[in-house]
Amino acid sequence: MVFWTVQPRLCVHWNNALSEFLIPGLNNVAVAEFDIIARYFAQADLGFTTQNIALGIGDDCALLSLPVNSEMAISTDMLLEGVHFPATADPFLLAQRSLLVNLSDLAAMGATPIGFTLAISLPAIDEQWLQEFCKGLTKVAQAHACPLIGGDTTRGPLSVCITVHGWVPKGEALKRSGAQAGDLICVTGFLGDAAAALAVIQGKSNTLTEVDQASLLEAYYTPKSCVAAGQALRGLASSAIDISDGLASDLRHILKASNKGAKVRLDTLPMSSAFCSATPTADRVILALGGGDDYELCFTVAEKNFAEAESRLRQLGVPVSRIGEINTGADLQWLASDGNVVELDVQGYTHFG
Amino acid sequence: MVFWTVQPRLCVHWNNALSEFLIPGLNNVAVAEFDIIARYFAQADLGFTTQNIALGIGDDCALLSLPVNSEMAISTDMLLEGVHFPATADPFLLAQRSLLVNLSDLAAMGATPIGFTLAISLPAIDEQWLQEFCKGLTKVAQAHACPLIGGDTTRGPLSVCITVHGWVPKGEALKRSGAQAGDLICVTGFLGDAAAALAVIQGKSNTLTEVDQASLLEAYYTPKSCVAAGQALRGLASSAIDISDGLASDLRHILKASNKGAKVRLDTLPMSSAFCSATPTADRVILALGGGDDYELCFTVAEKNFAEAESRLRQLGVPVSRIGEINTGADLQWLASDGNVVELDVQGYTHFG
Repeated sequence: MVFWTVQPRLCVHWNNALSEFLIPGLNNVAVAEFDIIARYFAQADLGFTTQNIALGIGDDCALLSLPVNSEMAISTDMLLEGVHFPATADPFLLAQRSLLVNLSDLAAMGATPIGFTLAISLPAIDEQWLQEFCKGLTKVAQAHACPLIGGDTTRGPLSVCITVHGWVPKGEALKRSGAQAGDLICVTGFLGDAAAALAVIQGKSNTLTEVDQASLLEAYYTPKSCVAAGQALRGLASSAIDISDGLASDLRHILKASNKGAKVRLDTLPMSSAFCSATPTADRVILALGGGDDYELCFTVAEKNFAEAESRLRQLGVPVSRIGEINTGADLQWLASDGNVVELDVQGYTHFG
Repeated sequence: MVFWTVQPRLCVHWNNALSEFLIPGLNNVAVAEFDIIARYFAQADLGFTTQNIALGIGDDCALLSLPVNSEMAISTDMLLEGVHFPATADPFLLAQRSLLVNLSDLAAMGATPIGFTLAISLPAIDEQWLQEFCKGLTKVAQAHACPLIGGDTTRGPLSVCITVHGWVPKGEALKRSGAQAGDLICVTGFLGDAAAALAVIQGKSNTLTEVDQASLLEAYYTPKSCVAAGQALRGLASSAIDISDGLASDLRHILKASNKGAKVRLDTLPMSSAFCSATPTADRVILALGGGDDYELCFTVAEKNFAEAESRLRQLGVPVSRIGEINTGADLQWLASDGNVVELDVQGYTHFG
């Protein structure tokens, strides 16, 4: 058996405490520095309270209260420097994106955000970095009434672990497993914009207009939140998932969980004009199906409920496209405009090249 | 503005998916490997369901249902290799400890565990390591009816981020802020065992019996869970905290949150016989007050409720000691057996040396 010895714990568990130093024997300056971090995160515009927050930052646990007859939805994501983003990542955008991708999981369940915890490790104290990071978090937290409720700060390689909490009326969560044969397959917004943004980031899209470039970059760095759209689909959609890994991959999760097949009409895939400007015609379908990071919703809905779903989403300013239909088969088939099946190697596509 | 480019995402978000690969264009072998990880964590004896788990691993979010008229308690902790433990840490013990220290936060609120999420990054796939890690998690999860409900797996430096969820009847959570003048200050179990274990680990306690050594090591590696004790104190204790950073430090959190002072009688501090064997007489008080990682509870209770609290804890086999009293002062004072105030530099003590 291998044992480990305790290292001085260069961390502040600020669910617990802000102003007291926690580490007997540790250099007080270092601890004071980490106390500064905790103070950034405990700012009132980030750690604000709502009717669902019974107790926020400052005790052993946060306490949340749920509306009567509801369930709590929970998701967690860890982003690592060097894996998900480089050390030079803009902290404002990193923070926004870190929280938005978590909120996207709530959206996919039709959940209403309540609050999130943040465990973060930082290699050093950079107050300007922290300020920008907190600004990014605050912007998204405020926009979704989803405050920071607690966390943990450690000195180490830069990593961000967010756990987000929301609520849904009991039994109304949009699961992956509910798709029925005959249901329409729909997606919100446009596909592939985030993937196309990479060409811009890598300097390969010099012919694009500035407006198109900005539009694609925004899709990548600050994905539109589908939280309101997800809530609007409660009681209507039969299943849902957020498109984080490309429609082809994510739709397959619905099919697998629902034990169904599907046909998708390739000519109905929604593409933005910026995407079309940035992407050669021959590559568009593959990029729209295989490109990740869209954070739009893919959902299924009975045909009789489609008009109502479309109407609700339109009121939110969210475009919706019917792209196919669920069936009792075992396959996901791609159809050309003439109705013929097309063979596509979507999984083999790389947008990282 | 500094942008970042997307790296191939060497991660599996297994809240979402187990058998599908998520990463377009990524080496399928690597993804299949990470799929293996996810399969370890999705084992039925670790990701089991209970009446509070409406939906476990496998969708965008987990769904929890709370008992009527209750609140959810949430805490998060991140443990990093090289900071909290070395790369050689025994995975079985690391897993147990990772979950136990989180459960300790629930215990301090008097909460009943429901489930936890795990975000873990691993430098490589080591199936034996994973097996042992999961065994450790499973043991603690089963013992507390607190299953794994979802998570995120990434390739990166070893780190473990757990977020734990529990419930308390509305308004009955044990907060730090409730201590009243005249309340007794109590602690469960013994103080300083984990700190004394370090001498054993570092090979400095060769004169100890094997039994004493084993007793101290167990206190350090698998801290006793106070979850049942915390629940038993609901409706009785006026405040509580778990002793993770040494009694002196943690009691101060209660005093600060409650805006009170306290006197503690040093001759009433509970010490185990193994601790006394391992620690020179002159060092005992400082080690008991300043040593971290005890994960016992410190709580305050009105004198009229003490007998009931003691009785409930006795039924659980949990020893409890009265060590002092809350007052309206602003200080935490240490008293000798003759009642005189003793000056102690507890914060200056290091058990890492």
